[in-house]
Amino acid sequence: MNSLKELGEFGLIDVLKQDTINDHSSVVVGIGDDAAVLLPTPKQLQLLTTDMLVESVHFDLTTTTPWQLGYKAIAVNLSDIAAMGGAPRHAVVSVALPHSTPPDLVVNLYKGMKEICHEFCVNIVGGDTVSSPHGLVINVAVTGEVEPANLVRRSGAQPGDVVVVTGNLGSSAAGLELLTAGQWEDYDFAWPLVTAHLTPRPQVKLGQLVAAAGATSMDDISDGIASEANEIASASQVGIRLYAGQIPLAAELKEAAAKLGKTPLDYALYGGEDFQLVFTMEPGKYAALLAANPELPVTKVGEVVDAGEGVTLVDQAGQVQTLKARGYNHFRQED
Amino acid sequence: MNSLKELGEFGLIDVLKQDTINDHSSVVVGIGDDAAVLLPTPKQLQLLTTDMLVESVHFDLTTTTPWQLGYKAIAVNLSDIAAMGGAPRHAVVSVALPHSTPPDLVVNLYKGMKEICHEFCVNIVGGDTVSSPHGLVINVAVTGEVEPANLVRRSGAQPGDVVVVTGNLGSSAAGLELLTAGQWEDYDFAWPLVTAHLTPRPQVKLGQLVAAAGATSMDDISDGIASEANEIASASQVGIRLYAGQIPLAAELKEAAAKLGKTPLDYALYGGEDFQLVFTMEPGKYAALLAANPELPVTKVGEVVDAGEGVTLVDQAGQVQTLKARGYNHFRQED
Repeated sequence: MNSLKELGEFGLIDVLKQDTINDHSSVVVGIGDDAAVLLPTPKQLQLLTTDMLVESVHFDLTTTTPWQLGYKAIAVNLSDIAAMGGAPRHAVVSVALPHSTPPDLVVNLYKGMKEICHEFCVNIVGGDTVSSPHGLVINVAVTGEVEPANLVRRSGAQPGDVVVVTGNLGSSAAGLELLTAGQWEDYDFAWPLVTAHLTPRPQVKLGQLVAAAGATSMDDISDGIASEANEIASASQVGIRLYAGQIPLAAELKEAAAKLGKTPLDYALYGGEDFQLVFTMEPGKYAALLAANPELPVTKVGEVVDAGEGVTLVDQAGQVQTLKARGYNHFRQED
Repeated sequence: MNSLKELGEFGLIDVLKQDTINDHSSVVVGIGDDAAVLLPTPKQLQLLTTDMLVESVHFDLTTTTPWQLGYKAIAVNLSDIAAMGGAPRHAVVSVALPHSTPPDLVVNLYKGMKEICHEFCVNIVGGDTVSSPHGLVINVAVTGEVEPANLVRRSGAQPGDVVVVTGNLGSSAAGLELLTAGQWEDYDFAWPLVTAHLTPRPQVKLGQLVAAAGATSMDDISDGIASEANEIASASQVGIRLYAGQIPLAAELKEAAAKLGKTPLDYALYGGEDFQLVFTMEPGKYAALLAANPELPVTKVGEVVDAGEGVTLVDQAGQVQTLKARGYNHFRQED
């Protein structure tokens, strides 16, 4: 098959629908009818989220492989489910493809999706495959489930709670800058950063663990910790104090920032697409969580304070500054 | 507000998220957290479907208003839920917008969506608003619910069943041709056809009614009855015999076809986007359905036959021809 025209929409769907069900017990009808038919788990809350990725806005096919793009298109949705404390279950995938798209590109795009779905036991149960006059567009919608007692919203943070993040922050944004600048392949430090950007791992297991351990609020870090801290503070009507010296940065990020002439912390505060989690928790419960899971990749970065204090960053000299959201904003007015 | 830049992504979301919940009892968290949190109805099967509409492929902003486009973007998804016998429940909406998009266009797009969601008691519980370098893209994913006993798939048709359609067929395709040709406004016959194309009404109530009455298979008519008959025949491993003289055509379609120099039946057989339903049913159950609902807008158009007979059309002279799917196929090789 040399072109989408030769393969046709229905031939394409026949190829794509293979190996899409990882949990057969919950799927009555997958791809191939008007709608998927699914068996929900009794007594669980259902979660639903969607994300759209647009060529030249969210990705550039000269710096990502189709496989990586497929992986990421699913990952960003699983990250939203993780941030509620839930388990992802089913995905529907829409793709708009230019007529010139090589069929292999589409097959590899779906291979990346199927890989991450297999890894997280998510089923691809439907979708839409259409043509596009300009550029590739991918939309994924994902359902999830959560025990009512384990649901974590953004709005439950209480003064006195600790503020904790998973993993390292800022790696993805530095990875994007390296990709955009080009000629990064010779630098060992660049690989983990570029990987963090191209194939972020959604923190589903950690999200479920900290939800069960009593997280009072949670958000995935898609727009930089400054933005997410403001979102939690606003939704919970609290203040948040972060400590610059406690924000976890990969050693490679520090190397990259030196090379790029930037401050590593800025990537963590304002960079996008880390897809780590930030959560708040009563200090005693956090201590118990750490005692039970000593190897947990989490770092305390601050405290929840009264709303009047706002969202602040305390630098290593003890200076306090207001921390504003400066994450990515589609349609933002240029400064 | 004069531009999306002034309003910004988050300002836009604040406007859009008003009046999005029509059934509060099933929504724990709507727009504004990482994912929507929903209460499923116990013991029902969950349905999930998605459709993407791309500017210049699926719609043209010179021939549709944003309100109509929003209405249709939801309608096509509700039609898929209707075709399973289900009730639509929740929608998530992604839109990719060029920077030059007037904010009023977006507001009116959402007004159209909110109108049909209100009409069918569907909640808009989330979405994604991103920028687009070229043209508007809308993706909607909708969940639904159905009693297990009322689920209707494409695969249950049995020889001896009647084949029935709702409403009239072909109107939407003729409406599209009129819109494309332009200068249709002076013709009274054009208005219902253009309306059928721009704001199709999903047959949710009829779908639920015929499902409960024992429909053995069902499909929504998105690609012409020839295509849907072939899909049901293939999924059910049966043949289908349609009678040309029985296919319901609007009087306005006949007038339009005369004006356009076309055969009205061709619009019904091969035209797209009617979003009516075609279903099969044991004749005794169909008679009982009609007896209980004498005003039902349904028409018997054929019979289910043995697979060996294939999918055929019997014309008014009694001539039998094989009926092939010729509906819209993205990426189809040109003839």
